[in-house]
Amino acid sequence: MRIDIITVVPQLMKSPLHESIMKRAQEKELVDIHFHDLRDYSKGNYRQVDDAQYGGGAGMVLMIEPIDKCISKLQSERDYDEIIYMTPDGETLNQKMCNTLSLKKNLIILCGHYKGVDQRVRDLFITREISIGDYVLSGGELGACVLVDAIVRLLPGVLNDETSALYDSFQDDLLAPPVYTRPEEYKNLKVPGVLLSGNFAKIDEWRQEMSYKHTLDKRPDLLKDE
Amino acid sequence: MRIDIITVVPQLMKSPLHESIMKRAQEKELVDIHFHDLRDYSKGNYRQVDDAQYGGGAGMVLMIEPIDKCISKLQSERDYDEIIYMTPDGETLNQKMCNTLSLKKNLIILCGHYKGVDQRVRDLFITREISIGDYVLSGGELGACVLVDAIVRLLPGVLNDETSALYDSFQDDLLAPPVYTRPEEYKNLKVPGVLLSGNFAKIDEWRQEMSYKHTLDKRPDLLKDE
Repeated sequence: MRIDIITVVPQLMKSPLHESIMKRAQEKELVDIHFHDLRDYSKGNYRQVDDAQYGGGAGMVLMIEPIDKCISKLQSERDYDEIIYMTPDGETLNQKMCNTLSLKKNLIILCGHYKGVDQRVRDLFITREISIGDYVLSGGELGACVLVDAIVRLLPGVLNDETSALYDSFQDDLLAPPVYTRPEEYKNLKVPGVLLSGNFAKIDEWRQEMSYKHTLDKRPDLLKDE
Repeated sequence: MRIDIITVVPQLMKSPLHESIMKRAQEKELVDIHFHDLRDYSKGNYRQVDDAQYGGGAGMVLMIEPIDKCISKLQSERDYDEIIYMTPDGETLNQKMCNTLSLKKNLIILCGHYKGVDQRVRDLFITREISIGDYVLSGGELGACVLVDAIVRLLPGVLNDETSALYDSFQDDLLAPPVYTRPEEYKNLKVPGVLLSGNFAKIDEWRQEMSYKHTLDKRPDLLKDE
């Protein structure tokens, strides 16, 4: 998979996508992530990429021309499955969307910043608008990091143990069961006996029961979805 | 506001919280962000912080003891309003929660990694469990970055123009209206005439109408909330 990220602050995204699991995924060549600094596609000495909005009001807006140049250059080099714009008014990201996107070959992710991008960018180039949740961030960069992390960890070979992602919350519309590790007793708090029993059929049953109970308790909406 | 973040990969969080708006907020001393590497609270030469889960299954679990030591040390130094655990099965973050949290003085944010933390940590220390959305990430670090960004940008003085955050999506349960910037015409696509009219009453009316239309079209659920 190849992911091209267009942003005005590429340096903001460096550490989340170059550490831990994301770092190993790139070292193993399971994903190829490229950053494109929008300023490299601007004109003039000031490398201007944003301007005040028409009609007045606070906040700068990213201009269409540098974005057009950057996307057009990328599209001249290869075909893209989706050109995604990260925006709070996009479709809300969920695990199913992550699963679907993890099967794609080439993705462009455009990050807005400040007030977002000129509407004509959205009308002309964007094939999918994604929000990571109902809150506003300083820019699309963190949203893009979240999207990339959520997708890349699903690529075969990225997690050490392939079964690991299957038991995550949401993969079966249930929240994950509680987990425990050593010591068996800590300040009078004990690990549930069943987990120490060695009876794996019973452990499995307990986990499913806890998953269901946990979901019913905290997120009954997930059970109603189907 | 002071935010203490407990993590096993502090380096992952450096760039998002040290660039752009977050950088300026810290330089202006509007927020004070501290990272605590959980390994500094582990014992033994291996600096072990995680272990296999009881009952078997893939994925490592963060142990209670180093987390207890770190939280207890912080609590001995000052009072905390909330001890937040970032987890996909927590309460789903929204703008109202961000607004509320932005009024707090001292927050601890604990980031899970891999399979999460020993359940007893959640039972014993955590006052609030937060999810940034219905998808799974490699760890709580990106979630914590998102939470911090969403909160800190609301602190008075962080955004250059204080009116800017007020017009964001979700602040009034409506999505933001479309924005446009120069040029007036690009490849035959024109900026809507009203925005060039100079009639601010009309512009305001158009923006409110577009906000409402946009929300009805894309997120009718937001209009039903009240």
